[in-house]
Amino acid sequence: MAVFAIGAARPDTGGPGVAPRVDTGFMRITVLAGGVGAARFLRGLRAAAPDTQITVIGNTADDITLFGLRVCPDLDTVMYTLGGGINEEQGWGRAAETFSISGELAAYGTGPSWFTLGDRDFATHIVRSEMLAAGTPLSEVTRALCARWRTGVELIPMSDDRVETHVKLASGHESVHFQEWWVRLHAAGPVEAIIPVGAEQAAPAPGVIEAIAAADFVLFPPSNPVVSIGPILAVPGIRAAVAAKTVVGVSPIIGGAPVRGMADACLTAIGVETTAAAVAAHYGADLINGWLVDEQDKAIVDQAIDDPTLVGITVRAVPLFMRDLPATTAMAQAAIDLAQELAR
Amino acid sequence: MAVFAIGAARPDTGGPGVAPRVDTGFMRITVLAGGVGAARFLRGLRAAAPDTQITVIGNTADDITLFGLRVCPDLDTVMYTLGGGINEEQGWGRAAETFSISGELAAYGTGPSWFTLGDRDFATHIVRSEMLAAGTPLSEVTRALCARWRTGVELIPMSDDRVETHVKLASGHESVHFQEWWVRLHAAGPVEAIIPVGAEQAAPAPGVIEAIAAADFVLFPPSNPVVSIGPILAVPGIRAAVAAKTVVGVSPIIGGAPVRGMADACLTAIGVETTAAAVAAHYGADLINGWLVDEQDKAIVDQAIDDPTLVGITVRAVPLFMRDLPATTAMAQAAIDLAQELAR
Repeated sequence: MAVFAIGAARPDTGGPGVAPRVDTGFMRITVLAGGVGAARFLRGLRAAAPDTQITVIGNTADDITLFGLRVCPDLDTVMYTLGGGINEEQGWGRAAETFSISGELAAYGTGPSWFTLGDRDFATHIVRSEMLAAGTPLSEVTRALCARWRTGVELIPMSDDRVETHVKLASGHESVHFQEWWVRLHAAGPVEAIIPVGAEQAAPAPGVIEAIAAADFVLFPPSNPVVSIGPILAVPGIRAAVAAKTVVGVSPIIGGAPVRGMADACLTAIGVETTAAAVAAHYGADLINGWLVDEQDKAIVDQAIDDPTLVGITVRAVPLFMRDLPATTAMAQAAIDLAQELAR
Repeated sequence: MAVFAIGAARPDTGGPGVAPRVDTGFMRITVLAGGVGAARFLRGLRAAAPDTQITVIGNTADDITLFGLRVCPDLDTVMYTLGGGINEEQGWGRAAETFSISGELAAYGTGPSWFTLGDRDFATHIVRSEMLAAGTPLSEVTRALCARWRTGVELIPMSDDRVETHVKLASGHESVHFQEWWVRLHAAGPVEAIIPVGAEQAAPAPGVIEAIAAADFVLFPPSNPVVSIGPILAVPGIRAAVAAKTVVGVSPIIGGAPVRGMADACLTAIGVETTAAAVAAHYGADLINGWLVDEQDKAIVDQAIDDPTLVGITVRAVPLFMRDLPATTAMAQAAIDLAQELAR
């Protein structure tokens, strides 16, 4: 197998708008993934490194049982996005979706009404629930579902055990499922704690630790550090396995605000500032080696040199808005480049 | 309460095409019901006797678990038909139906492909399955589902216990679920036996025996005697309760052929001729008191006088094709009339 030197001349594959396809040699990359941000990043990563074995460890802590069916929003967003079935505009759910079932469920007075599932999406949950009820572990179910979608990656849930992020609201000390807080309550605060219930008792799904150990490096896409990456790292054994590798993260915060979603509410809840620097410091140098920030946050590159919370983390500023596939591919390439530099 | 003499002058409610609405006084009628034929008959019965308390004991032996969801075809056909949600043309399933989910399930390679469920219909099965999984008995689930549909009748499943008709095929002695034989194999023979598995161990659902005992009379709509009415009667206690009442049945066979469906295959399987007379004899005079046959079978009216298998059964010939609501209402009225005559 040919191994190409990093920085060697790269074949130009086309004109403007064409994703640069670079033969970087065979690599194994393992990615910890949340939902929309991770899914889009992965599409870029797949384009940037087409010959690479990409293993995705998916967050399952936002999974929820609705209408008796097991819904895995993050796994499905990754699967649909890489499989070409995603609703591109909203970033989650299926394209060409219909909503007959939701209307019927409402007519039967069955809730919750704040979580609307499309008919095509329901099919995924029906297949998954049937397999789970038959005793098939979630990791095997996920593999079976992905067989249809030809995602080009191996998607493994972080655990076959049930982990569910619950949010403890300061008001009345009520604890609600993450999805209820996120979707129904629009991540309103104040929040006392965000707890991945069951994480401590969970075991990594088969293949998770192996994929991390075998990886040339590990990437954190621009996913929510608290409720997407956090729960994955909370499963015993995963954090240590990741920390043993070269890790490059992509900031989900640009210019003091989340690119998408309500990561600011999650960060506030755990006492972390909504800045690219604070998120890097939250992960810490014992976990991540490299950190990509957006060009508008490039001051952090110099700041990192002196900031004791960032010592040991190499920060690089590149365009982080995933506005199209070429931009996303370039960003993924920057993550690969930094990881390869740091891994040497 | 005014009780009108049978045969008294009836108010004419309108011209041609208008269902005759007759005040027959308050009655309690209990009906054992299969699917399409029963549902249509019940629509006529409701129109013929609007002030009547109609209790429907629904067959559940053709229920099946598909994709992990509990499907009750007969209960749903009655519910949708009386609730105005039925696909009128095919007689079962929902009007204005979409099929996103079935397409998705096929894309996932999940079977069976021979049983297609529509999206709206799926919603019913999702709600039912969720409630059953939570421990709610089928009779309560059915009441909850029917609350939406305002059927105008009380629909009770024959049993909260699981009974499933299985068909033992002569070829290879294979045993298949009724739906597989009916839908996938198109009721092909030869058949060694048709068995309502679990019936002997089942108990009537709450209210079933009470509704039969309290009824002025019991009606058998033109349902399949083997796989619709048969399983209901096979639940211990129901046959005896029915036999203690005045019972009028409507022949599902007209001119030697089933009006709808493949009752001939079922009758052949149990060694009964496909004639209106043979079906009456199959039920027997210890169970039914009156029997409506179509006008083209009116020879049976005279035949019954001498035929030892029909002694004790009053046969009457009336038009039995349920081509529209007025025709169906007239037919239901004929059943009421005969039952009231026999009950005197």
